[in-house]
Amino acid sequence: MIVSPLAPASYPELKPIAGVRLATGEAGIRYKNRTDLLLVELCEGTTVAGVFTRSLTASAPVLACREALKGGGARALVVNSGNSNAFTGSVGVASVERIMAMAAKEIGCKTGEVFTASTGVIGERLPDDKITASLGDLKDKLSDTSWEAAAKAIMTTDTYPKMATRSLTLGGKTVTINGIAKGSGMIAPDMATMLGFVFTDAAIGASALQSMLAQANETTFNSITVDGDTSTSDTLILFATGQAGNPTLAAPDAAFKKALHEVLHELALHMVKDGEGAEKLVTINISGADSTKAAHRIGMSIANSPLVKTALAAGDANWGRIVMAVGKAGEKADRDKLTIKIGGVVVAKNGEADPDYKEAQIDAHMKARDIKIDVDVGVGNAFATVYTCDLTHRYIDINGSYRS
Amino acid sequence: MIVSPLAPASYPELKPIAGVRLATGEAGIRYKNRTDLLLVELCEGTTVAGVFTRSLTASAPVLACREALKGGGARALVVNSGNSNAFTGSVGVASVERIMAMAAKEIGCKTGEVFTASTGVIGERLPDDKITASLGDLKDKLSDTSWEAAAKAIMTTDTYPKMATRSLTLGGKTVTINGIAKGSGMIAPDMATMLGFVFTDAAIGASALQSMLAQANETTFNSITVDGDTSTSDTLILFATGQAGNPTLAAPDAAFKKALHEVLHELALHMVKDGEGAEKLVTINISGADSTKAAHRIGMSIANSPLVKTALAAGDANWGRIVMAVGKAGEKADRDKLTIKIGGVVVAKNGEADPDYKEAQIDAHMKARDIKIDVDVGVGNAFATVYTCDLTHRYIDINGSYRS
Repeated sequence: MIVSPLAPASYPELKPIAGVRLATGEAGIRYKNRTDLLLVELCEGTTVAGVFTRSLTASAPVLACREALKGGGARALVVNSGNSNAFTGSVGVASVERIMAMAAKEIGCKTGEVFTASTGVIGERLPDDKITASLGDLKDKLSDTSWEAAAKAIMTTDTYPKMATRSLTLGGKTVTINGIAKGSGMIAPDMATMLGFVFTDAAIGASALQSMLAQANETTFNSITVDGDTSTSDTLILFATGQAGNPTLAAPDAAFKKALHEVLHELALHMVKDGEGAEKLVTINISGADSTKAAHRIGMSIANSPLVKTALAAGDANWGRIVMAVGKAGEKADRDKLTIKIGGVVVAKNGEADPDYKEAQIDAHMKARDIKIDVDVGVGNAFATVYTCDLTHRYIDINGSYRS
Repeated sequence: MIVSPLAPASYPELKPIAGVRLATGEAGIRYKNRTDLLLVELCEGTTVAGVFTRSLTASAPVLACREALKGGGARALVVNSGNSNAFTGSVGVASVERIMAMAAKEIGCKTGEVFTASTGVIGERLPDDKITASLGDLKDKLSDTSWEAAAKAIMTTDTYPKMATRSLTLGGKTVTINGIAKGSGMIAPDMATMLGFVFTDAAIGASALQSMLAQANETTFNSITVDGDTSTSDTLILFATGQAGNPTLAAPDAAFKKALHEVLHELALHMVKDGEGAEKLVTINISGADSTKAAHRIGMSIANSPLVKTALAAGDANWGRIVMAVGKAGEKADRDKLTIKIGGVVVAKNGEADPDYKEAQIDAHMKARDIKIDVDVGVGNAFATVYTCDLTHRYIDINGSYRS
């Protein structure tokens, strides 16, 4: 397997989080000779928050998580790779119920305190017996140091495991936030699914936790795109064990929000960097928009344009395609005030090419791994940043090769 | 140049249309040794209708056409390839004005009766002097038989010229509709631009003409997609010379609408067949939707999904990706009633894979040039059809190669 050229040189070391123990195993769901199952045990009193795909064809595990979230508490997380248990009808729902029941039995908790996620091929029945048969073994192997193993067990065709960590002081106590995620790798190959699991030992009420997660998600995971396709299984869950000893937060806290945002941002950028076929990380800053939502939509229109992405793959500073993508976004923009910078260099302003601009000025920038595009649409004061990768031949190789 | 494998074996012969004369020339706007300029003369009394890009960064010629359309009459059309005169600010506006003035002088009409379109690289100043200097020569060469030459002169990197024709009886007279178009070829390469010009000798009032054009456009050009990108220059204009001698139509006519729809449909399919890198024509029928608009949006979500399109390129009947695209469209769909057919074979129904389906059943269909996908979303009675092509390595070659 080719590791993404944008992969980090080394992985961060994730310290134990009091109240969290993890174990991974080979259940043989689809892959051979690699881990494909993760069990996480959470101590009593753990609160939970989650955000999920907006897809109308959401997978059975997503529906079950949404339901479990209403309770506000969590004691276990079970994640498998190899099969997404999506578009599997009532059979898929029954699979999730059996996994939740077995995990509840092993951990000793209520079924409604078990969260599950599945990633992989869709439309095939999940061999849940392989999962339920493995949970006892995994329970015996639970440890507080298995973070990298956990990040690896949820990978599909991700080319590297994705981890991030931050510590901060909260109510006089040091608290830690650990996150693992999988991104737009393909399975079988079938579809890109984003899964993210974040753990903290901070004591935080479920409502404050949900509020902080939803807010941080908007500018991190919801601001990245690889190919504009939305998975049926996208899942981001945040667990707070409350073991750090800080006074329980009943409302959002600025320092925690900042650290949480940093963890999510780091994980989200890893997803782009490991996007299918990615060779460049592209940061798109939109300013001068009518509203944050408009700025975001214009940014996404650029980030999802195949014409922009193929040009970037070729190192071509083809800003005409950026103009096109601004125009098709359907949001207010003033063509005659549009300013476009690439790598900090003004290439177009006031509705036409900047007469002082020479392509040679940004040659080196276009050949680098990090591309920066700034667009001011000239109608207001709102701004947003989105991230994407380029569109290369390898994207087609990965997604066009036959499943079997 | 590689001609699209979906190109027709032969081109239709377009008969003269009374009141229409055409001429093409080599103005040397960007290309060498190929025609890049088209002049069409229209007789007095010609009515006109047009639909244009919805892009908010529309090109200078599009803005001028919208303005000229208010007059309801047309005497000349000037089209150049090689430069789209888009995002060229006030300089671009002045270029269009000079071209319109010169064409009006040569043809002997008002400036407001001249329509222009430009396709090609954007953000570069149009050398309009090369166009105005050529119009006199072109006027001397006007002929009523130069249809194929006209279709060729407006090509950018289209791999074949696009023409369609129909005749019908209207008020006891035979009337003809001729159409030429250019599609999603790239120039320089810069952006896909769709241009379509349709001519008829029927006598039709401008308002009826506009109504019929707008309606036929919805289910033809507005129902195709190559890569989801919207050009700044998309233009479709219909001219009616009134020379057939039929009593002037003041209201839409069913027979004319049908013939017009057939011409537009044929041209629209040619655009898909000549889409960048296209190797397969994909017809997507959506039924059971809440509204026509919802059906259209779900169809476009499938047609624009890079994951669906790469799978089709590989001949992979990966219907899970179709489920994903239905889910992300944001329109009402009943996951548990969703039915998907590929090549007429049911592959999924009632929210899961059809247990009777074997991939071998559709092997031959997936390898063919024409792919048919039927999706019933199970919530209503509305339907729509959209057309697209597959996403191949050649798309990336065409769009990722450097402009210079």
